Amino acid sequence: MTTAKPLRVGMVGYAFMGAAHSHAWRTAPRFFDLPLDPQLTALCGRNDDGVRAVAGKLGWGSVETDWRRLLERDDIDLIDICTPGNTHAEIAIAALEAGKHVLCEKPLANSVAEAERMTEAAQAAAQRGVFSMCGFSYRRTPALALAKRMVDDGRLGNIRHVRAQYLQDWLSDETAPMTWRLDKSKSGSGSLGDIGAHSIDAAQWVTGQQITGVSALLETFVHERPLTGDLVGLGGHGDVGADAPRGTVTVDDAAIFTARFDGGATSAGAVGVFEATRFALGRKNAMRLEVNGTKASLAFDFEEMNVLSFYDAAESPDAGFRRIFVTEPEHPYAGNWWPTGHGLGYEHGFTHQVVDLVTAIGAGEQPSPSFADALQVQKVLAAVEGSAAESSRWQKV
Amino acid sequence: MTTAKPLRVGMVGYAFMGAAHSHAWRTAPRFFDLPLDPQLTALCGRNDDGVRAVAGKLGWGSVETDWRRLLERDDIDLIDICTPGNTHAEIAIAALEAGKHVLCEKPLANSVAEAERMTEAAQAAAQRGVFSMCGFSYRRTPALALAKRMVDDGRLGNIRHVRAQYLQDWLSDETAPMTWRLDKSKSGSGSLGDIGAHSIDAAQWVTGQQITGVSALLETFVHERPLTGDLVGLGGHGDVGADAPRGTVTVDDAAIFTARFDGGATSAGAVGVFEATRFALGRKNAMRLEVNGTKASLAFDFEEMNVLSFYDAAESPDAGFRRIFVTEPEHPYAGNWWPTGHGLGYEHGFTHQVVDLVTAIGAGEQPSPSFADALQVQKVLAAVEGSAAESSRWQKV
Amino acid sequence: MTTAKPLRVGMVGYAFMGAAHSHAWRTAPRFFDLPLDPQLTALCGRNDDGVRAVAGKLGWGSVETDWRRLLERDDIDLIDICTPGNTHAEIAIAALEAGKHVLCEKPLANSVAEAERMTEAAQAAAQRGVFSMCGFSYRRTPALALAKRMVDDGRLGNIRHVRAQYLQDWLSDETAPMTWRLDKSKSGSGSLGDIGAHSIDAAQWVTGQQITGVSALLETFVHERPLTGDLVGLGGHGDVGADAPRGTVTVDDAAIFTARFDGGATSAGAVGVFEATRFALGRKNAMRLEVNGTKASLAFDFEEMNVLSFYDAAESPDAGFRRIFVTEPEHPYAGNWWPTGHGLGYEHGFTHQVVDLVTAIGAGEQPSPSFADALQVQKVLAAVEGSAAESSRWQKV
Amino acid sequence: MTTAKPLRVGMVGYAFMGAAHSHAWRTAPRFFDLPLDPQLTALCGRNDDGVRAVAGKLGWGSVETDWRRLLERDDIDLIDICTPGNTHAEIAIAALEAGKHVLCEKPLANSVAEAERMTEAAQAAAQRGVFSMCGFSYRRTPALALAKRMVDDGRLGNIRHVRAQYLQDWLSDETAPMTWRLDKSKSGSGSLGDIGAHSIDAAQWVTGQQITGVSALLETFVHERPLTGDLVGLGGHGDVGADAPRGTVTVDDAAIFTARFDGGATSAGAVGVFEATRFALGRKNAMRLEVNGTKASLAFDFEEMNVLSFYDAAESPDAGFRRIFVTEPEHPYAGNWWPTGHGLGYEHGFTHQVVDLVTAIGAGEQPSPSFADALQVQKVLAAVEGSAAESSRWQKV
Repeated sequence: MTTAKPLRVGMVGYAFMGAAHSHAWRTAPRFFDLPLDPQLTALCGRNDDGVRAVAGKLGWGSVETDWRRLLERDDIDLIDICTPGNTHAEIAIAALEAGKHVLCEKPLANSVAEAERMTEAAQAAAQRGVFSMCGFSYRRTPALALAKRMVDDGRLGNIRHVRAQYLQDWLSDETAPMTWRLDKSKSGSGSLGDIGAHSIDAAQWVTGQQITGVSALLETFVHERPLTGDLVGLGGHGDVGADAPRGTVTVDDAAIFTARFDGGATSAGAVGVFEATRFALGRKNAMRLEVNGTKASLAFDFEEMNVLSFYDAAESPDAGFRRIFVTEPEHPYAGNWWPTGHGLGYEHGFTHQVVDLVTAIGAGEQPSPSFADALQVQKVLAAVEGSAAESSRWQKV
Repeated sequence: MTTAKPLRVGMVGYAFMGAAHSHAWRTAPRFFDLPLDPQLTALCGRNDDGVRAVAGKLGWGSVETDWRRLLERDDIDLIDICTPGNTHAEIAIAALEAGKHVLCEKPLANSVAEAERMTEAAQAAAQRGVFSMCGFSYRRTPALALAKRMVDDGRLGNIRHVRAQYLQDWLSDETAPMTWRLDKSKSGSGSLGDIGAHSIDAAQWVTGQQITGVSALLETFVHERPLTGDLVGLGGHGDVGADAPRGTVTVDDAAIFTARFDGGATSAGAVGVFEATRFALGRKNAMRLEVNGTKASLAFDFEEMNVLSFYDAAESPDAGFRRIFVTEPEHPYAGNWWPTGHGLGYEHGFTHQVVDLVTAIGAGEQPSPSFADALQVQKVLAAVEGSAAESSRWQKV
Repeated sequence: MTTAKPLRVGMVGYAFMGAAHSHAWRTAPRFFDLPLDPQLTALCGRNDDGVRAVAGKLGWGSVETDWRRLLERDDIDLIDICTPGNTHAEIAIAALEAGKHVLCEKPLANSVAEAERMTEAAQAAAQRGVFSMCGFSYRRTPALALAKRMVDDGRLGNIRHVRAQYLQDWLSDETAPMTWRLDKSKSGSGSLGDIGAHSIDAAQWVTGQQITGVSALLETFVHERPLTGDLVGLGGHGDVGADAPRGTVTVDDAAIFTARFDGGATSAGAVGVFEATRFALGRKNAMRLEVNGTKASLAFDFEEMNVLSFYDAAESPDAGFRRIFVTEPEHPYAGNWWPTGHGLGYEHGFTHQVVDLVTAIGAGEQPSPSFADALQVQKVLAAVEGSAAESSRWQKV
Repeated sequence: MTTAKPLRVGMVGYAFMGAAHSHAWRTAPRFFDLPLDPQLTALCGRNDDGVRAVAGKLGWGSVETDWRRLLERDDIDLIDICTPGNTHAEIAIAALEAGKHVLCEKPLANSVAEAERMTEAAQAAAQRGVFSMCGFSYRRTPALALAKRMVDDGRLGNIRHVRAQYLQDWLSDETAPMTWRLDKSKSGSGSLGDIGAHSIDAAQWVTGQQITGVSALLETFVHERPLTGDLVGLGGHGDVGADAPRGTVTVDDAAIFTARFDGGATSAGAVGVFEATRFALGRKNAMRLEVNGTKASLAFDFEEMNVLSFYDAAESPDAGFRRIFVTEPEHPYAGNWWPTGHGLGYEHGFTHQVVDLVTAIGAGEQPSPSFADALQVQKVLAAVEGSAAESSRWQKV
């Protein structure tokens, strides 16, 4: 059986993201050859009964109720942070200082200042061989990874247009309850940081360009929502009484902005348009990215996550958007799974994230995206909020 | 055979739009019952040989080389203006004052000031029973007309999101030649007025809301293009020498803006995002409109012009975007054509425009969209340009 | 204006097909350069008032109530037959013998024997410069014409699979009334001849192969339908009383068969599967054809008539079905219409049919499909009925 | 952690299906509450080194090289058979007689006679509380499970049409190597049993009707293929020398047949058309099923496995195929996974299969599909082969 050295993981937080991360830690070594063998060593949550029940279900070997205890344990090599954004900085910095590798959920932090401190800690730790990664898991969708490869290979030429939408609808129902994701003190922002951050990271990563400025508009459609005991969930279907006590939504429900990119080494810079909302009724998880270059175009929609659409102008007049099923052995990640045409699901992005993280740690190399990469996203988020606060005036990143 | 009184048309301009309008005038009475019988009486163009050849081909009974002559003729009841935007105001105002009905291509004019004068002239003429309409022909696509009907019927609830894209790619090739559409003095603006104006009109018309402010970004990707003798075309495939003399593009190649709507009588106002470009490689005529309400959503893409997608949240959990083939007898315009499922094409919008125009004139009623409606679009165009000129600062309409 | 010699048309029949043909005769010379100038000279129908009203509406110059009168007129050059199938043989043969060119709607006849006599008459007439064509108008859809060009150019390699579906649903409602299309004595067969014939012709034409044998199953779902006064229509929505007198449906409601092809000159022959039905609820006019070769595949669905899907295995591993918008100037027919991406509709097939017919007549050449081509389709129809009558036993064509 | 009694699994075979089953056994208890706790106790394969390496990778606790040894072990409760079809009968019958529950891959056997003996053994074992299931895993795709629920709920009315396609292309390349799946002595049949069997089971299961007769055509396109050492694989990309020794393909490459259904309790029986091929270039795993009823229609394509298309005629004239994202908490299986819109992948069908199997065993109830259900599929396969051998003559099942 595998003779790889163990990589003992302690995970903080165990809601939706915790389940996805647990599955990834369990599954990655079954389908990929890893230089280290992940162990689900300890799960940490504040409520002892709760964390104990979940740990058994998800396959964790022990539990803790204080994340500081995880850092003290000698049998933990890596801290996986799945908590709300307001706790990321403290946990991540302490973990790195304690010599633990860190995988931190996105957005990296709730402010640029926090993200800067985390990045400094990450860079210092990397000098000591302690690595960190931010969990922009959509990068690990095979279709988006293929998109990046195509751009890197020059198949698009210079990029002119980027359009990114992240459309969901789970808050469209006004009776959906209040959650921590709607509380700015916990989540930092609303649709902007929760889903818009994915679009920003994906757009920059696929194009190889950074956003240099934005003009933005934020909107909150529903200002109060019923309070339920559970503030950790994703919302759900809101079967609470009309007279339930109500909490105040303090984040954006929708974020829309235009952007300019820096053009990287070879082109003049693209223009972009972004939209993130959880009120686009009927759109369930439409994380979409389209890039138009001088030679070709790419389009992706997570609602068809196994497909990348590619238009090659050289095929004119018989050109057309090609629906590439990104399940061939030559495609990113795909060869380790099923035969051609047998698609993957949402959780595979997390499994691939573990693969890339463990591979980098095993090689003693900086994983990507680094905290520095995530800090750049954080700066875009801040510029969006800044522009929205000043009548959409252009805001440099 | 038909005993309806004739409606004698004189058309100015005969390029792409002229062919579409001619087809509409010929075809409308064959499929619809009209109160007046359109006659293709005279075609006007500056070049005598050119206009004579085209007139024969398109079925016009006589020709003129000066539009002023058309206005003097007693046997002309309506002037159809298909020329570049810089000529609209002069021709339209003179025609109305000469007692001729007017159909004027969009955008109405090249400035708000011109559009205001045209609107005044139109309103004065209407008092005398002389009517005018602006050619926002996409309103006559059955799927968009059904979209409006559904919004009017309250099926969407209050509207929260509008996203409109108009994506083409015929200028993506840098060797595509210079045309009047790229010369600001003739066209007023570039993608903004040419195609963005359609999106603005459609978004306002379908939602029943007006845009109250915008924040915009304009971009020109290709600053010079080869000059050919022909400046009237749509561009084409650019087989001109590399050393051809070059003309300067003075308009936007892409226009991107965010917007707020006034909410009409019953809701709080939607947020919108608009993009118009002729550089989205692979998108041929993707005039798209999506509207998300509190009860339902609608989505349209002209590249599938016979389909309207409709999501009704009341069908949850088995809800999904419904691909409505807008070819049922109950659907707008559709019952006058073919059996169910036998789709219509681009030119049908112009035919339906003639139907609606002639029907209104026959009834002595103001056709829609009026010049006043088109003026409102013009104000949005101006606000977009104003915002873009001031670092995307929010601009009221 | 045009100096081409006139081609004076007399049309028999004026229901749905008559309107489509009239539009085509009127429109073809406006968009295409034709060697002869079509004139809508006379329309023939049995009911004098009816034909007179329709003739005025559709633009015909005179009327007749007996088709034999049309043949006697010196001012008629071509007879366009839009009547039910049981009348085709008599009219077409008489017309050809009277020296008139003939355009005959499909299926060519109601029996192989009739079709053989018509083919003999056509071949004899062609010797005298009098030509004939059968109206398989789907061949003139630009996307299917491009499909044929691609096969002819060898881009598919050898063909292995053909799958053809023609799915409609307008008879799914059991209260839809009886029409001549459901009366075997008039229509010859049901879905088989009405829509299956299109699939058979398109499959053979695109692949360049002929069907050599079939195994078939026919089914009638609704055996009686309400009688209304109007037996000429397409059915409609059946708002007739439950106690209306009922007529017996004597044709197939659905036809399903497997087939083998002859492989043409260069390959081993493909296998095919065909389905034609007017009971596929939700499918409005899904005339679909897919062809899989050794090098590439093609797929078409009339519900997206402006698109041809093309898969080129040479692009592997990044191959995918390419949605070709068949609106480029280089595409069949498309250059005579609108700019790229501005799609065509159902009636354009008929306009293109007129273009090809008039072009061939003008050149003194046999138009395609000839009556001989249509006879081959008729033989397939007969083999299908023969197989279905003998427990699906294989039937050679 | 979980206190459920263990269910100790021994699996025979470990190629593609073995990896999928292993993942399912590992994953099911992490996302679902099961009455028994599956243990990956022993993996059996003929090659000691091979099975040992795989067992470690996939998480199995021990290995065997003779499946008979598995049956003798007291610590095995269930035998999971993932070997070629020619071994199913012997292993399954012996396992049942040894008191082990059995999960057997499809098709159940290589002949009706074998399947009948297996069914007898299964029914005898069930009397003793020892249960068996056949692995028609597509039943566990949430979208197909929702399709069945909708039919069962009467939402389709009486069913008229079934069309089922299973299109792949991995054998289209003539240089793809010989495998056991192309050797009739091992696999029983080709595309028919490998993928057509899934279509047959799904069509019967979703409609609740059984196929009563068929007319069929089988075709082999490529008669010889290069031999490589590895006959267990799926084919792959054929980079073997042109002069490699070649093996004879003894199975069908494509199977096409028409069918009639028994109509169940309430309707008159549907007609069906089926096609299974691994030569449909560009179709990767297009397992498609469409059902047209008198009230509604359903369509599914595994290439978009998270979507079920549903057309409800009651919504006319605004009816249209609704793309239901089958990821709502109310949908089959979906509530145990991710938020709405976060799709599942191919392997989830196997995980759900384990869930249903373990749930039934825990409850002491017969799992579905039983061997008797699979025997019925086997009879259809035999009828298809019988009809194809007799010139497509109708063959009763």
